[in-house]
Amino acid sequence: MADLPELTTRSFAGKNCLVTGGLGFIGSNLVLRLAEAGARVSVIDSLEPRHGGDVRNVETADPQIIIDDIANAAGHSKLLFDADFVFNLAGQVSHTDSMKDPVGDLDINARSQLAFLEALRHAGARARTVFASTRQVYGRPLYLPVDESHPVQPIDVNGISKLAAERFHQLYGETYGLPVSVLRLSNVYGPRQRLEGDHQGFLPVFVRHVRDGEPIVLFGDGSQERDCLYVDDAVNAMLAAATEPSAVGETLNIGHPEYMTLREIAETMLRVAGGGEIQSVPWPAGEECISIGSYRTDMSKAETMLGWKPDVSFEEGMERTLSHYQARYGPAIATAQA
Amino acid sequence: MADLPELTTRSFAGKNCLVTGGLGFIGSNLVLRLAEAGARVSVIDSLEPRHGGDVRNVETADPQIIIDDIANAAGHSKLLFDADFVFNLAGQVSHTDSMKDPVGDLDINARSQLAFLEALRHAGARARTVFASTRQVYGRPLYLPVDESHPVQPIDVNGISKLAAERFHQLYGETYGLPVSVLRLSNVYGPRQRLEGDHQGFLPVFVRHVRDGEPIVLFGDGSQERDCLYVDDAVNAMLAAATEPSAVGETLNIGHPEYMTLREIAETMLRVAGGGEIQSVPWPAGEECISIGSYRTDMSKAETMLGWKPDVSFEEGMERTLSHYQARYGPAIATAQA
Repeated sequence: MADLPELTTRSFAGKNCLVTGGLGFIGSNLVLRLAEAGARVSVIDSLEPRHGGDVRNVETADPQIIIDDIANAAGHSKLLFDADFVFNLAGQVSHTDSMKDPVGDLDINARSQLAFLEALRHAGARARTVFASTRQVYGRPLYLPVDESHPVQPIDVNGISKLAAERFHQLYGETYGLPVSVLRLSNVYGPRQRLEGDHQGFLPVFVRHVRDGEPIVLFGDGSQERDCLYVDDAVNAMLAAATEPSAVGETLNIGHPEYMTLREIAETMLRVAGGGEIQSVPWPAGEECISIGSYRTDMSKAETMLGWKPDVSFEEGMERTLSHYQARYGPAIATAQA
Repeated sequence: MADLPELTTRSFAGKNCLVTGGLGFIGSNLVLRLAEAGARVSVIDSLEPRHGGDVRNVETADPQIIIDDIANAAGHSKLLFDADFVFNLAGQVSHTDSMKDPVGDLDINARSQLAFLEALRHAGARARTVFASTRQVYGRPLYLPVDESHPVQPIDVNGISKLAAERFHQLYGETYGLPVSVLRLSNVYGPRQRLEGDHQGFLPVFVRHVRDGEPIVLFGDGSQERDCLYVDDAVNAMLAAATEPSAVGETLNIGHPEYMTLREIAETMLRVAGGGEIQSVPWPAGEECISIGSYRTDMSKAETMLGWKPDVSFEEGMERTLSHYQARYGPAIATAQA
């Protein structure tokens, strides 16, 4: 974990912080950081089976935990009213799942979010709120790197639902004065990410293959570019957005200036792991049509507005990530393959 | 009603046409036209109490009527499979209702639409499909007149939900080959519009005031510009979009080149009615923040692509509209006031 800046402690110590989706990947890393800073942390998480939430992710922080859909947040109006900060990370992130169960994706990513905003409004909440969105709202880039002026043209149900949720947040900000910031996150990786299944993006799949000593599988030629963000850097961006007054009402890209092709990403991971191989296969049916080609984040707005930038290189972040899973699951990957 | 062009009969006679929301205002006018052209017309309509649907609207056409939410369309898969044309007009149009019951608006305008598209897909439907959207997706215009390149930035829940539904339609077109066109309609008026309540736009409210011999009430100075589209012209645009191959996958603005301030619209209506007065009042609480200022439609794309243009001037359309309500409700308006 990155050094905990003095600033974070000053901003969050003793503050009431509500983290939705706080048992999941990014949410749990955020909960741990807030608890370290001395915040009083509450979590609402539905623990949907395929989403990766796990109470063990936050056991060292011991937050108040409410197992519920955020759509039912109206039942916790005192919690909402008392919150100084809301980090709204609840959602499902799988593009492929969103095409298999589109209405389910809309329910989780837009309908529950809208009900949550209604609950905040009716509770009289004035919490500084950060909503975690996704670069997926941009769809296939028209130019690279992608800044916030790039047209939004999502190419799957997940992107459409998340975009609607972004707009609901901005609407509640403009109409009811809720101080909201929207962060569009690039591909995030790191400890506590769910590795099971192939439905939550390529990074957890790659990490699982490496952990299990299996080849990393690339669809097509693996030439699509991505920038990958270590979870601590994503957490830093959320903390910075929550405390920066000029970020109210803003939408900010959060990514990493280091970009690589999927093949280079895989090669770096194998180098860090000390060995392993890459296997190229044709695109599975139905996957290529929701692929977006290359993507690179222009995060200069966030750098300027928040004074934030990523601290962790991909190689360093992947070392930390693989060490985490090695510590949890046993011997080093290269050894396991030997 | 406008002359029924030979072309319409040739395109729709004997064809299976499904009209969702077909008991409502625009839907019922479309059903009557299709029936005149010799189409076999089916209707799915949920008859939501505040939306204006009424079986008496289509009794002269005698279509097959299914009273159901389009979210349940999967139960009518043969109907979907057999359809040559789907005119998808189901929805709720009230901006103010969408702010009072936001989740209800999302359910009707986006969730049910997504479920309907899933039903079409799973039924193997290949119907030429026209989705009725709204100019509300543009929000407050950045320039006038508004063309399809104008950024979409809806300023109420209704606009966000309708925009999500548009995107779902385009996504199902691109991903599953459903031949879809999206029409963004301006303010539509005419016979069979629900006049009760103040929640479905200013035109039905103005018509009701005139019908009842009451003053037309203007919020603020009434200086906002609008273009108003007579319902037969909206129906013509839908028929043209459904039969124009190059309109597949396209989004088209449908409005009228004649624009007026709300005050001029009211004055024209009183002139047509033969008398009456205008009353100016301050903006009601909560209304001004979802007002968009002036709006004018640039419909040149539709004119070029569809060979369509509006036939009915506002004065002529309003004469027909007031005659319709006069015939239904009794003596002339001016007489009623005398």
